[in-house]
Amino acid sequence: MRIGVLGAGQLGQMLALSGYPLGNRFAFFDTTGSPSADIGTTLSDTSGVKLDEFLAQVDLVTYEFEHLPLALVQQVAQEKALYPGVEALRVCQNREAEKTLFDQLSIPVADYRLVSSADELAQACTELMRAGAPAVVAKSITEGYDGKGQAVLRDPEQAEEAWAQIGHARLIVEAFVSFVREVSIIAVRDQQGEVVFYPLAENNHVDGILRYSLAPLPDLSDAVQQQAESYIHKLLDALEYVGVLTLELFQQADGTLLANEMAPRVHNSGHWTQDGAISSQFENHLRAIQGLPLGSTQAIAPTCMINIIGCMGDVAAILAVEGSHLHLYGKSERAGRKLGHINLVAADIDTLLQRVNQVAALLPDAPPPAFSFVAD
Amino acid sequence: MRIGVLGAGQLGQMLALSGYPLGNRFAFFDTTGSPSADIGTTLSDTSGVKLDEFLAQVDLVTYEFEHLPLALVQQVAQEKALYPGVEALRVCQNREAEKTLFDQLSIPVADYRLVSSADELAQACTELMRAGAPAVVAKSITEGYDGKGQAVLRDPEQAEEAWAQIGHARLIVEAFVSFVREVSIIAVRDQQGEVVFYPLAENNHVDGILRYSLAPLPDLSDAVQQQAESYIHKLLDALEYVGVLTLELFQQADGTLLANEMAPRVHNSGHWTQDGAISSQFENHLRAIQGLPLGSTQAIAPTCMINIIGCMGDVAAILAVEGSHLHLYGKSERAGRKLGHINLVAADIDTLLQRVNQVAALLPDAPPPAFSFVAD
Repeated sequence: MRIGVLGAGQLGQMLALSGYPLGNRFAFFDTTGSPSADIGTTLSDTSGVKLDEFLAQVDLVTYEFEHLPLALVQQVAQEKALYPGVEALRVCQNREAEKTLFDQLSIPVADYRLVSSADELAQACTELMRAGAPAVVAKSITEGYDGKGQAVLRDPEQAEEAWAQIGHARLIVEAFVSFVREVSIIAVRDQQGEVVFYPLAENNHVDGILRYSLAPLPDLSDAVQQQAESYIHKLLDALEYVGVLTLELFQQADGTLLANEMAPRVHNSGHWTQDGAISSQFENHLRAIQGLPLGSTQAIAPTCMINIIGCMGDVAAILAVEGSHLHLYGKSERAGRKLGHINLVAADIDTLLQRVNQVAALLPDAPPPAFSFVAD
Repeated sequence: MRIGVLGAGQLGQMLALSGYPLGNRFAFFDTTGSPSADIGTTLSDTSGVKLDEFLAQVDLVTYEFEHLPLALVQQVAQEKALYPGVEALRVCQNREAEKTLFDQLSIPVADYRLVSSADELAQACTELMRAGAPAVVAKSITEGYDGKGQAVLRDPEQAEEAWAQIGHARLIVEAFVSFVREVSIIAVRDQQGEVVFYPLAENNHVDGILRYSLAPLPDLSDAVQQQAESYIHKLLDALEYVGVLTLELFQQADGTLLANEMAPRVHNSGHWTQDGAISSQFENHLRAIQGLPLGSTQAIAPTCMINIIGCMGDVAAILAVEGSHLHLYGKSERAGRKLGHINLVAADIDTLLQRVNQVAALLPDAPPPAFSFVAD
């Protein structure tokens, strides 16, 4: 089966590497002007005029990137089977639609307000802080990822400046919540509605960019795993979703979870599954969208994913660390750019954390990991 | 690093799929006129005129196929680093040179004779049968694999017919040995001479073609593993080998091993390492040839590789079997053709063997596996 991918970055390339063994071949459609996928065919076209050429090459279409023009995706869906569907993309592109869906499905989130002016932003900030929030974060309801298009406010007086800096007509303002750790759950829904779940991962972000993901968590109770599964299951069913969906959550001191945001695709916090689970998120996404049975999401061993950001580090020394797996994206060094990742596996969590520290020391500018094991 | 591969079949494609995450890109040089690798660049050229074009695209060269014109390989080695080297290829192309090396290194083999006529073949057959062999197998000293270019003789009177059928000027005649099972060991030697070994696999052949490989073996003593390691270690050092080498052996009723033949490349009996070992044979071959540290050869779980031969079977049903991993080669169905393989992993050997039988039943014309667990 020939699979078309909207987006042509490292996620697309890793999908393709997983799809070759399933007999798939790939074409990528890039709308950013800077494709990096270097396998199969890539059509780079910021205006959409090559869309027919792309569609003629493929049997079905998926996406690896959610910041796509919605009109383009709707056009694709009229011509070819598209998984996940247009509605999933629409909701995930818009924080207002996303939060509305969370509310409809009774998935708990941090307290929030929607605002359309600097005055409303100041008012929202005042209300949320009066209710106990130590600060708020304002985000444009569209676009923005990896911490872009956002501002933190610790005082309503910062509203004018934050409004100007973000520069969007509508913002969501969320109360800062006190959390012990950031976690994510990745789930896969097939064409018959069957759903499988990976174990939760703990995610360490630095400057808004993911640095480390650890899974499975040695101290996570079944109840918390099941809570996360129930939330993402409701989202998958509501969106009649097919493929991999990621839900990022905050775990609070009492063990409970608050939903943060979701991504309608394979996700950086699921890269550990390439070497740490029986079937990876990439393979399971491909199995789902082409109507094949889903593979096992069971973890093989404690695993930690470490992003390589900005510069490559000492690749040979990293490969010399027992149980290390390198995944490079074929990109050149640039500050803040994701160049690849390392998956470390070990027989037990203590050995794993030792190896993580070993590898972190080989990556320039990588802060050591700060995992927060909590008793649920 | 840009890697050139002589040969463009499934082994080359699987090397490339393992090499992308290491940052490698690939060009293939095909001398057979029927390349199947469908990743990177392929130059198909049975006369060798495109060799310069191929060499200009790559930093170093390896091979995935040993039946290459030796002159071509020598020419490559003059232009680029070639791993494994020309000498390894020369020895592995010629059964007389291979057996001579085994003898020099005191690696035990079945009794054999070299013959250059039908009369000599009859004489060799008489001698070997008088010494106790129930039958002999005659093989051309060059070419021939998967049971091609061979004949079994149970009587010296069959010599004329066998000689004519094989049609080569020089043959090796080997005594049939009584063995309990066929096994293989795969080892990797790096540029500094460090060597790592995978656990032995048991191989089931049907009509001369590999059907099943099982590893690690639940009943194999450390002593036998070490015996196999010592044999292949001597071969690797003697050939100043860099990369993956495979040695096929017979295990006799008393547990001891006799060498059968070797292959200077990644090998079908090592495909289980893709899903059953920490680092696969493909990744370790690439690490070795580009001077990177070798990855762990440790098995993750009991694993069985099942070849898909001739027809595809029910792919969806195969993927529904817990712990199954599909690896297709992008080839169309044809009798006797290797179309792909399935790696099955399980937490224990009994569960694994149940799943193997489940999958075997889904492959048309696949005989059930016949593994022979022996007490060493």
